[in-house]
Amino acid sequence: MSQSSRFPSLSQFVTATAGRNMTKPAYVAITSGVVLIMLLTVDPAYAAMHYLIDALLWACLAFFVFEWVIRLRHAAGAGRRAAYIFSFRGIVDAASALAVPIALVAGASSGTAWLLGMFWVLKVVPGIRGLRQLRRVLVVESGPLLSVLVIFLMVLFMASVAEFFLERDVQPANFGSIPAALWWAVATLTTTGYGDVVPLTPLGRLIAAGVMICGLGVFGLWTGILATGFAAETRRDNFLRSWEAVSKVPFFASLGPSAIADVTQMLRTIDLPMRTTIIRKGQAGDCMYFIASGEVEVDLPGKKIVLGEGAFFGEMALLGNNLRSADITTTRVSRLLMLDLVDFRLLMARHPDLAETIDAEAKRRALENK
Amino acid sequence: MSQSSRFPSLSQFVTATAGRNMTKPAYVAITSGVVLIMLLTVDPAYAAMHYLIDALLWACLAFFVFEWVIRLRHAAGAGRRAAYIFSFRGIVDAASALAVPIALVAGASSGTAWLLGMFWVLKVVPGIRGLRQLRRVLVVESGPLLSVLVIFLMVLFMASVAEFFLERDVQPANFGSIPAALWWAVATLTTTGYGDVVPLTPLGRLIAAGVMICGLGVFGLWTGILATGFAAETRRDNFLRSWEAVSKVPFFASLGPSAIADVTQMLRTIDLPMRTTIIRKGQAGDCMYFIASGEVEVDLPGKKIVLGEGAFFGEMALLGNNLRSADITTTRVSRLLMLDLVDFRLLMARHPDLAETIDAEAKRRALENK
Amino acid sequence: MSQSSRFPSLSQFVTATAGRNMTKPAYVAITSGVVLIMLLTVDPAYAAMHYLIDALLWACLAFFVFEWVIRLRHAAGAGRRAAYIFSFRGIVDAASALAVPIALVAGASSGTAWLLGMFWVLKVVPGIRGLRQLRRVLVVESGPLLSVLVIFLMVLFMASVAEFFLERDVQPANFGSIPAALWWAVATLTTTGYGDVVPLTPLGRLIAAGVMICGLGVFGLWTGILATGFAAETRRDNFLRSWEAVSKVPFFASLGPSAIADVTQMLRTIDLPMRTTIIRKGQAGDCMYFIASGEVEVDLPGKKIVLGEGAFFGEMALLGNNLRSADITTTRVSRLLMLDLVDFRLLMARHPDLAETIDAEAKRRALENK
Amino acid sequence: MSQSSRFPSLSQFVTATAGRNMTKPAYVAITSGVVLIMLLTVDPAYAAMHYLIDALLWACLAFFVFEWVIRLRHAAGAGRRAAYIFSFRGIVDAASALAVPIALVAGASSGTAWLLGMFWVLKVVPGIRGLRQLRRVLVVESGPLLSVLVIFLMVLFMASVAEFFLERDVQPANFGSIPAALWWAVATLTTTGYGDVVPLTPLGRLIAAGVMICGLGVFGLWTGILATGFAAETRRDNFLRSWEAVSKVPFFASLGPSAIADVTQMLRTIDLPMRTTIIRKGQAGDCMYFIASGEVEVDLPGKKIVLGEGAFFGEMALLGNNLRSADITTTRVSRLLMLDLVDFRLLMARHPDLAETIDAEAKRRALENK
Repeated sequence: MSQSSRFPSLSQFVTATAGRNMTKPAYVAITSGVVLIMLLTVDPAYAAMHYLIDALLWACLAFFVFEWVIRLRHAAGAGRRAAYIFSFRGIVDAASALAVPIALVAGASSGTAWLLGMFWVLKVVPGIRGLRQLRRVLVVESGPLLSVLVIFLMVLFMASVAEFFLERDVQPANFGSIPAALWWAVATLTTTGYGDVVPLTPLGRLIAAGVMICGLGVFGLWTGILATGFAAETRRDNFLRSWEAVSKVPFFASLGPSAIADVTQMLRTIDLPMRTTIIRKGQAGDCMYFIASGEVEVDLPGKKIVLGEGAFFGEMALLGNNLRSADITTTRVSRLLMLDLVDFRLLMARHPDLAETIDAEAKRRALENK
Repeated sequence: MSQSSRFPSLSQFVTATAGRNMTKPAYVAITSGVVLIMLLTVDPAYAAMHYLIDALLWACLAFFVFEWVIRLRHAAGAGRRAAYIFSFRGIVDAASALAVPIALVAGASSGTAWLLGMFWVLKVVPGIRGLRQLRRVLVVESGPLLSVLVIFLMVLFMASVAEFFLERDVQPANFGSIPAALWWAVATLTTTGYGDVVPLTPLGRLIAAGVMICGLGVFGLWTGILATGFAAETRRDNFLRSWEAVSKVPFFASLGPSAIADVTQMLRTIDLPMRTTIIRKGQAGDCMYFIASGEVEVDLPGKKIVLGEGAFFGEMALLGNNLRSADITTTRVSRLLMLDLVDFRLLMARHPDLAETIDAEAKRRALENK
Repeated sequence: MSQSSRFPSLSQFVTATAGRNMTKPAYVAITSGVVLIMLLTVDPAYAAMHYLIDALLWACLAFFVFEWVIRLRHAAGAGRRAAYIFSFRGIVDAASALAVPIALVAGASSGTAWLLGMFWVLKVVPGIRGLRQLRRVLVVESGPLLSVLVIFLMVLFMASVAEFFLERDVQPANFGSIPAALWWAVATLTTTGYGDVVPLTPLGRLIAAGVMICGLGVFGLWTGILATGFAAETRRDNFLRSWEAVSKVPFFASLGPSAIADVTQMLRTIDLPMRTTIIRKGQAGDCMYFIASGEVEVDLPGKKIVLGEGAFFGEMALLGNNLRSADITTTRVSRLLMLDLVDFRLLMARHPDLAETIDAEAKRRALENK
Repeated sequence: MSQSSRFPSLSQFVTATAGRNMTKPAYVAITSGVVLIMLLTVDPAYAAMHYLIDALLWACLAFFVFEWVIRLRHAAGAGRRAAYIFSFRGIVDAASALAVPIALVAGASSGTAWLLGMFWVLKVVPGIRGLRQLRRVLVVESGPLLSVLVIFLMVLFMASVAEFFLERDVQPANFGSIPAALWWAVATLTTTGYGDVVPLTPLGRLIAAGVMICGLGVFGLWTGILATGFAAETRRDNFLRSWEAVSKVPFFASLGPSAIADVTQMLRTIDLPMRTTIIRKGQAGDCMYFIASGEVEVDLPGKKIVLGEGAFFGEMALLGNNLRSADITTTRVSRLLMLDLVDFRLLMARHPDLAETIDAEAKRRALENK
């Protein structure tokens, strides 16, 4: 990726499409697809430029068919055709490519068939960063979450039956059956409260008040569970990403295994594209960086210094003078380990030898750059 | 359970029913009961197939009566009849069996009597996993939760009196009494906001705005309390379940008591039925397992290896090669202790002797399976 | 308190009223006051029994006047009259006693004057347990909470101005002035959503959608802040209450100061009235108790054993046999320190000498009670 | 600041305005600006006193123009004119000064032009304490927050398309296009629930119920993420502020680096203006203080003692007698380090030498003050 020119050729694009990640054209196609589907249903807009909208929708569809075919061929080439077809991505890709044409062939009106383009947005799912993290939280906490859901459903059903019994004679149009009462109960228990259906009898209102307060409780439990799970997952995710990177920094090699576990819990991994300015001269600094992979360039007054894998920088801002003294920019795709000011101090306090190494290096640099 | 055939005989079913846990037929009866009660109230559906619905409802009821009788006899046999009758389960079982018939006998119309079938859903309560955990949180945090509830009720009452005073002349139909104003206050303070009753005077609206903001605050406090309690409870629950299991794994026997407490906090217990695949070849792995009880089968290319109580597996994915190298399946109902990648590394760092044991075993296996 | 008979004399009641805590008659008076004020406004109820309601209201008022006078005299006797009058309790007591009579004298109608009885509920405030804890959380987190409030108000104002500008020509009745638009904005930003006022222009709806999403954000921040503060406060509160009690248990005296700090973080203080059953024979047990003050009685088959300050009990359930082997009841008002199963194991692991002491005592008791 | 008289001269005010912080007149101008803009739109109020309102609005505007000019000149003097102009504050100051006049010149009616005064409230933003903290939380947690936002938008779009398809024939006025359906979807997914647009078909209501429950989920995730981030940020912020101050207290100099890190995590920094009473005689005390900078005066019965940088006070309340024995007041702007009772005990337990120093000092003082 770091060698590609700014205008990739078609073959490069095909390779990118066949790969796992979303390409920029795909994002463009999905976004415009969403906008076009909306415009299609707005009568004045569609009347004014229906040729354009139709043409662009077909173009979006063509792109998704093209993407699907490329991925199918690529998967077949790698002998994983079945695996691809039945994966979540394969199903979404197929639905994106085929749903609209099939609907059109099956005789649906144009206005209805294009609505199936709503599946296009699902293509974004594998590209959402942090989704894996969210999913793990939901899996780990599924037990208590399901308990709350069951309680939610039980309250829903019992409240509906009670309200049906109390209100069916007063307002048969709104509470004439339990499914109708369920509509009221869902809107109330989630504290949405449309107000289109409202109990009128005193006892019905008392039960409704109870349902609303239960709604607050369900909400609170749900949030409490998710917050707990999320806190644990964040710690875990951070540890895992840092662990791999720490092993590549010779600086930490001198530490014993328990100190490494200690350090790993403090570091935060960040991935940067090339030509990104990490530190800007004159800014206030509150962290230092270790280079796990890649390369950065320090832009000093007279000269440029290149730091490679295993080097560290930004430590001066943590050792007294608060302002950054030089611009520092990545020259390659780099993975950095960020050490926050707070953790820096805790680390230095616990491992005085690390502190000395950093101090010595900082002094050497200060002398050099005078 | 592990010896029972797939088609249990009636006597087996009776034994299961008499026991503490829900049986599959009970889940079926409850689910269909709920659906049938709903259908009963949907006029077109009931008109079309009222024989079927009535018949099935009677069948559900018969099942619950049968269940209640079996449990009563079983409890009487064990000399715990009174204990069962006055327990939550006993009361729910009795209500499920008797409420509808009593209502019918007492002269209620069929459509009304069957509504009492709503108590059937309460039978699910003892079967909800994690309910005990939720209840403990509510008990432990009951102090602050009640404080918030009292504040909630005070705001409710004072807002109702104020709005009654301000709005009673403007809209006597909606704010004609304090109970009527309470209806508005509950819907507002829980941020449900039906909108059927809305203050119209400027001062009334100012108070309403305050009530809404209080609603946010109550919500926030409630959630904050529950989140705090839940985090503590999750830690506790996990520790308790692991502690018992750890003592059955000889691997941990060499650890001192403080290290065992350490390990216990890291492990997560999972219970699996027989013939469940735990690890699938080629998947990415991020945890290892210890067998607390039961047995698993490792499906290697040429042979099958059986691992029993106290053995461990899955450690290779944590020691370098990320992909699982074999399918592993339970052959009996098993309790496993899962050690996450993160905790594995922390544990190895703190207890180098453990690391050596696992390393040695992993090398031995790698040689063997070559 | 432990010596008082079940029917306290008037002088005892006066003493209790003069003290800090709420008395039972006060709770009765407040509750009935609230119910009576409500009934007063319900026309059919008031018409049916207005003599009774009026008489009871006067009785409530008389009680509050009596309470106020006693407290005034008691405070004057202790030389703290001014301090009492200007404290929160003094102001509430004065308002409860004087508001209604003053309103009646000032010529307000009876129906209006009694509404001022709503201040009666404020008398409950000093009696709410955990309120001090809630207040500390609000004080400690006041910085971030106020920031969120300022952001809330800014969004409110700017959204109102924008909607006023966009909607004033379309629906002058609803958005005819900024205060009117504010009414809409509050109901929307708190996600109450009455729906009585709704923007109609496309741009107005876009802004409204933004306001709703901001509402979610404000909610989330608020809750997050409160959850954080609450977790810290719970830890602190528990520590403080246990610290005092630990020093009274000789069992912990052998521990060094850091171990005591350790133990204190694990214990949970509970205060019990006399004749409360702490442990019931046959129940599953998951904690043991230390007696910080008071006395308990162990009801063994043949005899009754009394345990006093500094003793512990319930440890057998933690050392193997899960079911409690005897009923244990307080004979005096007692303060117990509860040690949870989880913490018991952690503590035993870290302090093997404690484990031995408990083991020895448990064996001695087992022998004795055979 | 501590030397300025109570009535600052104009030149002092200009200096204050040029500085970073908000001045009191600025707060007054913003508050009255907001009130005036509101009154402008309330017809009866404006009719009654339109001369006054107009005059005051012009005065507010004049103040903001004056503020902007001073800051521009000051920035130009410091050679940072461009930096100021394109900073957030510069843009807000410019908009506050210029928006209304430009609108008036461009021919907008007076009632419309003054609405642009809503930008005035943005001037408060740099003055909000804790905003930086909130922003850091949002930045650090931006990954998961964005994931949730993307999921939110996907649910929004797909629900809108589905409802449009299901409801367009039944209620073309409300669900006639996807943007119209989006309006319903936003109000539902945020659980606002206006109720102005409500699905009527059974399938439409089923989807709506799903959307409401998703709304609860999104809410829960959002809050969980923010709570996690906020807890981490609070710890970090507190540590950073204490670290600097600790180094100024000689009392802690004897501690090793790891103990200092330990202490720093426990201390809480508070900044106080001069003549603030920190401790009031007779109050219950639950913390002690170290003076990081500034000076306090202890008001003992016979004499006044002045304590300067590095001294500590309030420790007696933590060493046995619960009530404060003297009033203590700042005599200068001071930064204090507060040590809570809980942390005091933990600290004393871990560092017995510290405990001795404090004990010795406390005894010396007790003797002296006899």
